[in-house]
Amino acid sequence: MATVPTMQEALLRLTDYWAGRGCLIVQPMNTEVGAGTLNPATALRVLGPEPWRVAYVEPSVRPDDARYGDNPNRLQTHTQFQVILKPEPGDAQDLYLGSLAALGVDLRAHDVRFVEDDWASPALGAWGLGWEVWLDGLEITQFTYFQQSGGLTLDPVSVEITYGMERIMMALQGVTHFKDIAYAPGVSYGEAFGQAEYEMSRYYLDDADIATGRELFEAYAAEARRMLDARLPVPAHLHVLKCSHAFNVLDARGAIGTTERARAFARMRDLAREAAELWTERRAELGHPLGDAATRPAAAAEPAALPQITAPGTFALEIGVEELPPREVPRAVRYVADTLVEGLREAGLFTDDTQVDEYGTPRRLVVVIRRLEPREPDTEQVVKGPRMAAAYDESGGPTRALLGFARSQGVDPEQVGTVTVGGGRYAGLTRTAPGRPAAEVLAELAARVVRGLRADKNMRWNAPGLAYARPIRWLVALLDEHELPVPAAGLTAGRVTRVHRTAGEPLVPVPSAAALPETLRAHGIEPDPARRRARIIEDARALAAREAGGAVDAAGEQPLIEEIVHLVEEPVAILGSFDPAYLELPQEILTTVMRKHQRYLPVRRRDGSLAPHFVAVANGACDHAAVRAGNEAVLRARFEDAAFFFRHDLRATPEEIGRGLDRLTFADRLGSMADRAARIRAIAADLAGLLGGDLTASEAAALRRAGELAKFDLASAMVIELSSLAGTMAREYARRAGEDEAVARALYEMELPRSAGDEPPSSVPGALLAAADRLDLLAGLFAVGSAPTGSSDPFGLRRAALGLTAILRAVPRLAPVTVRDGLEIAARHQPVEVTAEALAETERFVARRLEQALLDDGHPVRVVRAVLPHAGSPAHAERAAADLAGLLRTERFDRLVTALQRVLRIIPEGTAAGYDPELFTEPAEHRLEEAFTRVRAGLAGRTPTLPEFTDAALPLAGPVDAYFDDVMVMAKDPAVRANRLGLLAAVRDLVAPVLDWREIT
Amino acid sequence: MATVPTMQEALLRLTDYWAGRGCLIVQPMNTEVGAGTLNPATALRVLGPEPWRVAYVEPSVRPDDARYGDNPNRLQTHTQFQVILKPEPGDAQDLYLGSLAALGVDLRAHDVRFVEDDWASPALGAWGLGWEVWLDGLEITQFTYFQQSGGLTLDPVSVEITYGMERIMMALQGVTHFKDIAYAPGVSYGEAFGQAEYEMSRYYLDDADIATGRELFEAYAAEARRMLDARLPVPAHLHVLKCSHAFNVLDARGAIGTTERARAFARMRDLAREAAELWTERRAELGHPLGDAATRPAAAAEPAALPQITAPGTFALEIGVEELPPREVPRAVRYVADTLVEGLREAGLFTDDTQVDEYGTPRRLVVVIRRLEPREPDTEQVVKGPRMAAAYDESGGPTRALLGFARSQGVDPEQVGTVTVGGGRYAGLTRTAPGRPAAEVLAELAARVVRGLRADKNMRWNAPGLAYARPIRWLVALLDEHELPVPAAGLTAGRVTRVHRTAGEPLVPVPSAAALPETLRAHGIEPDPARRRARIIEDARALAAREAGGAVDAAGEQPLIEEIVHLVEEPVAILGSFDPAYLELPQEILTTVMRKHQRYLPVRRRDGSLAPHFVAVANGACDHAAVRAGNEAVLRARFEDAAFFFRHDLRATPEEIGRGLDRLTFADRLGSMADRAARIRAIAADLAGLLGGDLTASEAAALRRAGELAKFDLASAMVIELSSLAGTMAREYARRAGEDEAVARALYEMELPRSAGDEPPSSVPGALLAAADRLDLLAGLFAVGSAPTGSSDPFGLRRAALGLTAILRAVPRLAPVTVRDGLEIAARHQPVEVTAEALAETERFVARRLEQALLDDGHPVRVVRAVLPHAGSPAHAERAAADLAGLLRTERFDRLVTALQRVLRIIPEGTAAGYDPELFTEPAEHRLEEAFTRVRAGLAGRTPTLPEFTDAALPLAGPVDAYFDDVMVMAKDPAVRANRLGLLAAVRDLVAPVLDWREIT
Repeated sequence: MATVPTMQEALLRLTDYWAGRGCLIVQPMNTEVGAGTLNPATALRVLGPEPWRVAYVEPSVRPDDARYGDNPNRLQTHTQFQVILKPEPGDAQDLYLGSLAALGVDLRAHDVRFVEDDWASPALGAWGLGWEVWLDGLEITQFTYFQQSGGLTLDPVSVEITYGMERIMMALQGVTHFKDIAYAPGVSYGEAFGQAEYEMSRYYLDDADIATGRELFEAYAAEARRMLDARLPVPAHLHVLKCSHAFNVLDARGAIGTTERARAFARMRDLAREAAELWTERRAELGHPLGDAATRPAAAAEPAALPQITAPGTFALEIGVEELPPREVPRAVRYVADTLVEGLREAGLFTDDTQVDEYGTPRRLVVVIRRLEPREPDTEQVVKGPRMAAAYDESGGPTRALLGFARSQGVDPEQVGTVTVGGGRYAGLTRTAPGRPAAEVLAELAARVVRGLRADKNMRWNAPGLAYARPIRWLVALLDEHELPVPAAGLTAGRVTRVHRTAGEPLVPVPSAAALPETLRAHGIEPDPARRRARIIEDARALAAREAGGAVDAAGEQPLIEEIVHLVEEPVAILGSFDPAYLELPQEILTTVMRKHQRYLPVRRRDGSLAPHFVAVANGACDHAAVRAGNEAVLRARFEDAAFFFRHDLRATPEEIGRGLDRLTFADRLGSMADRAARIRAIAADLAGLLGGDLTASEAAALRRAGELAKFDLASAMVIELSSLAGTMAREYARRAGEDEAVARALYEMELPRSAGDEPPSSVPGALLAAADRLDLLAGLFAVGSAPTGSSDPFGLRRAALGLTAILRAVPRLAPVTVRDGLEIAARHQPVEVTAEALAETERFVARRLEQALLDDGHPVRVVRAVLPHAGSPAHAERAAADLAGLLRTERFDRLVTALQRVLRIIPEGTAAGYDPELFTEPAEHRLEEAFTRVRAGLAGRTPTLPEFTDAALPLAGPVDAYFDDVMVMAKDPAVRANRLGLLAAVRDLVAPVLDWREIT
Repeated sequence: MATVPTMQEALLRLTDYWAGRGCLIVQPMNTEVGAGTLNPATALRVLGPEPWRVAYVEPSVRPDDARYGDNPNRLQTHTQFQVILKPEPGDAQDLYLGSLAALGVDLRAHDVRFVEDDWASPALGAWGLGWEVWLDGLEITQFTYFQQSGGLTLDPVSVEITYGMERIMMALQGVTHFKDIAYAPGVSYGEAFGQAEYEMSRYYLDDADIATGRELFEAYAAEARRMLDARLPVPAHLHVLKCSHAFNVLDARGAIGTTERARAFARMRDLAREAAELWTERRAELGHPLGDAATRPAAAAEPAALPQITAPGTFALEIGVEELPPREVPRAVRYVADTLVEGLREAGLFTDDTQVDEYGTPRRLVVVIRRLEPREPDTEQVVKGPRMAAAYDESGGPTRALLGFARSQGVDPEQVGTVTVGGGRYAGLTRTAPGRPAAEVLAELAARVVRGLRADKNMRWNAPGLAYARPIRWLVALLDEHELPVPAAGLTAGRVTRVHRTAGEPLVPVPSAAALPETLRAHGIEPDPARRRARIIEDARALAAREAGGAVDAAGEQPLIEEIVHLVEEPVAILGSFDPAYLELPQEILTTVMRKHQRYLPVRRRDGSLAPHFVAVANGACDHAAVRAGNEAVLRARFEDAAFFFRHDLRATPEEIGRGLDRLTFADRLGSMADRAARIRAIAADLAGLLGGDLTASEAAALRRAGELAKFDLASAMVIELSSLAGTMAREYARRAGEDEAVARALYEMELPRSAGDEPPSSVPGALLAAADRLDLLAGLFAVGSAPTGSSDPFGLRRAALGLTAILRAVPRLAPVTVRDGLEIAARHQPVEVTAEALAETERFVARRLEQALLDDGHPVRVVRAVLPHAGSPAHAERAAADLAGLLRTERFDRLVTALQRVLRIIPEGTAAGYDPELFTEPAEHRLEEAFTRVRAGLAGRTPTLPEFTDAALPLAGPVDAYFDDVMVMAKDPAVRANRLGLLAAVRDLVAPVLDWREIT
């Protein structure tokens, strides 16, 4: 590492570096912004076609991160250095690494990585794909290909690079508290900014006036609105920023509830979108003063000369990309290999001898195919001319039609023969089409493969017309030792691959297709995920055992290991340690931080408990001591943060923490989170009533107590910070406060399921609270008109509905609870009127979610449609669907269905049940009436399952069939006709509540 | 000039330059500020004893300066580069010049000057003394020794350097519109920021919501208040800044009236002061983390060895200072010379031969005194011992008292002689005290002179205990060829003077006292103001004649020339030109701009009209072409500004302009400026009524029409910008709109007098409106409780009262108008109740101003006191005072006064007039009664002048004297006594309304 700069020196070095790369240097925004992105030099300038390169410092104000200057890593104002390169230049990662070198980072000693981190700002209507850049595990930079801003799709795409300066400086200077950063010669960060940090923390966390904050928010929003109406995007945007800061202050003061947040976000997003649109329009009106750099369709590439091979050969394709999201790598490799194989099979180049090897790393998708045929087999081609009858005249001479055909085919008429097509005989030709050489097939196929790459989330970059998870930057296509100059993604394939960016020669020519994997290995890159996986597990276990006397649970950590495999090209396991004192924190907190935030493998002692160690996996050769130290510092900081919250929370009892719910607004007209918690408590009690005397005394006690504490942890510091720990922390804090385990469990379970596929509650108190939670959310928000619209579901009501049905399906003892009952109960506890319409709408909404859930579970559409209308509760619906699936295509059930459908088909709408046996004229009438009476009696007082119902109702089938065979239902005599229909309607009414029989086809 | 930097390069160069001089580099404030000074890195950090060096860019938002980007020189956001050096380092000017060189300014080619410009921010409770730095006439930097901030006196003193970057860049790059500045390679300022400039101008000038602005102002002020109460100075200060910006936006929208402005300023000032105090306290509580650099009393200097001379010699003292305000130079030279001469006279070193030469420039006060005595004359010193009687015993031997005296004096008893002191004889000694050498006297005297320097406005710098107009930086003190190492102002005098800062060797040793003036001249500095004056006049005239065929009116421009003489050390006249098209502007605008803003001498044609030329006077050798071009560019910009406003205003009629008065709030509860204008109109009409039928028809018409237009120009762009042109522009616009000349004149005159000593109105309509204006102001603001308190007179009511009395004194036809009458009329037109108490208080207030004005005019106190109580109107008071002054010490008047004072002395308080001639017993009684009756008859129905009254009343003198000689006033018979006193009381009542006779002594 060169001389370590002070922070001010570092900012100047970055400024000089980027100024030297054509960036305009501008000043920070002169109103508070949460990030450099919000500065109009980014937020507006990335819009439209004008090129733009800019760099600036942005002191970014995040009231939420205020910690009075106590926390070593969090500041209410941290310093971003922001760079925008528009259009993205194609080598932004290299430019970025150059800037780290300019800062004095020795790129060969340290582990610098691009770790997937997509970015979205709902408040700005903006998103992009990219990475957080890790320096020895420390997130130092956000690197994003900006895709949309203000709701507008960006063209050209900009690269946004955001350096977190305090973190970088702490790492560079090796200090553990931001206050110790040498800011300028002889002046520490704490000396320069410590008092402001403390006081502004006080302001944001404790002292800012909430009523004033709301007033400011409204005033700014109104001003933004007015400026939009005046067609002035710059002041409009300015006031959106002011709005956003006012919101952030309120949020830090704990004054923003779920709904209010969603509403405010929607409002800010709409304003930001309009400002963006208006800016775009205005720039167009001004004629785009800075020019037009929008992407244009690439000119068609000249067809290149392709090599020829004569014997079976080897083909290698490498698609070089910027670091892919880990989950994308295996999927993409699969797609590339499958598409190639399929294409080669179609072309007949793929034989039984052909062997396919697939490889993938974050930066490359590689397929090597050996023993390919050198060319396609030739094919016969028939060219049909006029019918024979029209081809030759009576004298056997060629007609004008034949002459024309021959001319069009460039042959003499005599050369035209006879062909048979579709059984008819025609004048025609049979030609041999020679097979294409392998190179031609492969070139076309490879181009198609590249163009066809798609991921879950795709981005655009400077390649016109392409969209993929990350930019494609190089292509290697070799056939044996020959290059295949495939044009794709704005590139032309060749033989040059790229190895580690820090290599002396990062560009390496590959001698032949077969040599590609070994060429990569020779430069330290292991292309085979399996080998990387094996190496990670082996090295991690060895390190854990040798240096920590512990173990890494490779099976238990499988998802994490899978992720790591696709985060590195050359796994280098490094064992790090942390202060054992942190082991006093709940292990869930520690492992969550290690796994989710840092991708470290936890090390466990023989007894399964956590050891104060972890295994980090670096990418490639590095200075292990430096990388270890860096990663340890990062983890310490993260644990310190968590410990801060944990200690803070433990100073209070759950009740005391819960008092903070008062200050969390839940939703407009629906009160605070405390109000909501009280409603959940009451709704859960009413739901318990529906179960009758079914609760045990201990369950009832747990429900009552957990109800009293419901949601208390939402007001805890830990959950405010790490919302994914809601429930988990409630359980932890409840246990530590000496609450009953059943209470702790219910508090944990009431947050379940967190997402689709998550486990549902298992205890009855937990399930009742969980259901009550969702019912309250649904009934309340539908009542105040906040139902989801289109793709917008800011309050997560779809998830809530799905969660509700999952809970009611999962817990058998809640089976009696219908959605309708639940919603009616919830409606009674709302502070606003819930109209019948709203209730019905909510019920339909939940029913649609249930329908989708059942479909997602694999139930056929007709099954779901048949059972759903009449399933009183989700549990019944699920049961019925399962039962129906079992019954379908059984002969007995088919008989019943056929019979019942005959009944249902003939009865006009609105026919009432009812008949007079005196009017029966046919024996079949009597027989049906008897069967009906028996079946009805058998079912009386029961809620039978579908198989039970089938068994019970099956005796109707014969009499029904006989009835239709023997009886003229639509008799001329109106009285008779009505009597006959009335009998059928009685049957209808008996079976209708069970299924929608008409849906069964 | 080295490579011309782009603006972003220039900012980086300045940043590097100041970082290299120990400055912390921080970021601009992230809320809108009007100047870098407001950033807490200045506003708070200059407080308290901690050292601090900082530099930063500050985009400074001045909504008022918004011009839609049209004006080449004005921007709503301009870029300041701000430097704070605390404590001031002693060489900040040189450091600053170094930064200009770093920017690429060739200091030898250009005319860089420090032109007095003190700075005060009422809103911040801050002020400082210093300069605007001129580059070829262009103000590019504000350079201030910060003396007070937040109402707190600063110790140590900081230097604040504020660069105006756009102006500097325009000058460096030679462009004439800010949009044309090369901001970065290939990107102009207009391209980068033009749209924002336009849109934010729209926002500030046209579209910002006024109600919202007021709401924001209140919200911020309240938040600042709360933070002060929470003892958090940083967020408190932040909210003061937000307050200030909200205010500025309202102001730019034209929504702030006089009173509201004053109130808002007071409120912001108080908040800022409290924040400053709190910051200071908090830093003290924190133990001043950055150290303590407060000035400390200097250690007493070691007495230095002083030279001796033996023959009459020459003494030279040069006090080297940073550029003094021009008016201070002659005054200070006078003080230095007088003090030296007086001291030398006292010491006996000054003889009839001694010759004193005085010199002064902005940077030096020089006195050279030739043929001084080499030392003080010796003096005899008498030491008194015991009285003779107590000194020797009867035997003539020494008593113990004598022995003690001898011992105490260190002599043998025999050596004690006899001395005479105060006529008494004592034992004692006569000693010869040898005179001190001249060097010793001069050293002490010179130190005293330096310490004693004082100006109207004094500042402190790093010299403990000193305060003067500007810092003293070097001292030269020579006695013949010897140095006099005088310690003063933290310096020690020597022989090294300083010449032009751009000289190759700016430090020059002076060989001898006598050689000082010529040494300076040898380096281009003319120390003699008379020679500089002569050179300026001669060169300016020659240039004007030779190159412009015109003339400079040296007599007419005398005040300006006097200023220029003391702005330069080496005057170099340079003729510049401007586009003759600007001559279409009113000449007052052009000359005001040239004289006041630029200190250019206007050039006139033979016919007296303005020529399109000017003479600028540079300081020292420079590249004339470059300096001319620079000055021309500056003037063009200034004229362009003025032309912009002028053209803008001319698009509307006076009535149309006047409609804008509606939007200018005048004062809380007193309505808008439009309301005020209406009141002035009505009051003037009523005042005219007081004059009876005295107005001519044309006067009445002019008054009516001018009343309709009263104050309309306050809403004009020109006057909003250049308020000193109020009245002038009204006249101009009225003329151009075709109004009668008398109307135009009245509109002009109603603003007169602008200040003490300014000419008053001369036409009756003008005087009536002018008086009405002041009466409205006084009556209204006293009524709403906004009378001046202590030194605070935010509404300028003292000036208004003075103006009112000046008007009523100056215009003979308004003589009948008393202040009381006027105020009663004004009170009737107020929208609020004006209580009797308020009216009386206002009248007293005006009377005190009148008293002061008469005293200031040189009337003796007794005269003023004598005439004032009875002067119905200021005109009468003045006339009476003048008359009284003429009469005083005349024999006739003395006789009358003596007689009347006898009368007044004898009459007890409360004696009623009235007598019965029947009760007269003495002839003197009859004679007095006859005289009184005659005099009374002679005065009946007249309001005589004082001389007339004297003439008329003089016949009373003899009878009065005789009365007192012959009549026993206090007769024993009560009836007789009462009758006699009643006669005298009648005399008293006759003379009382004229004067307070008792005051005449």
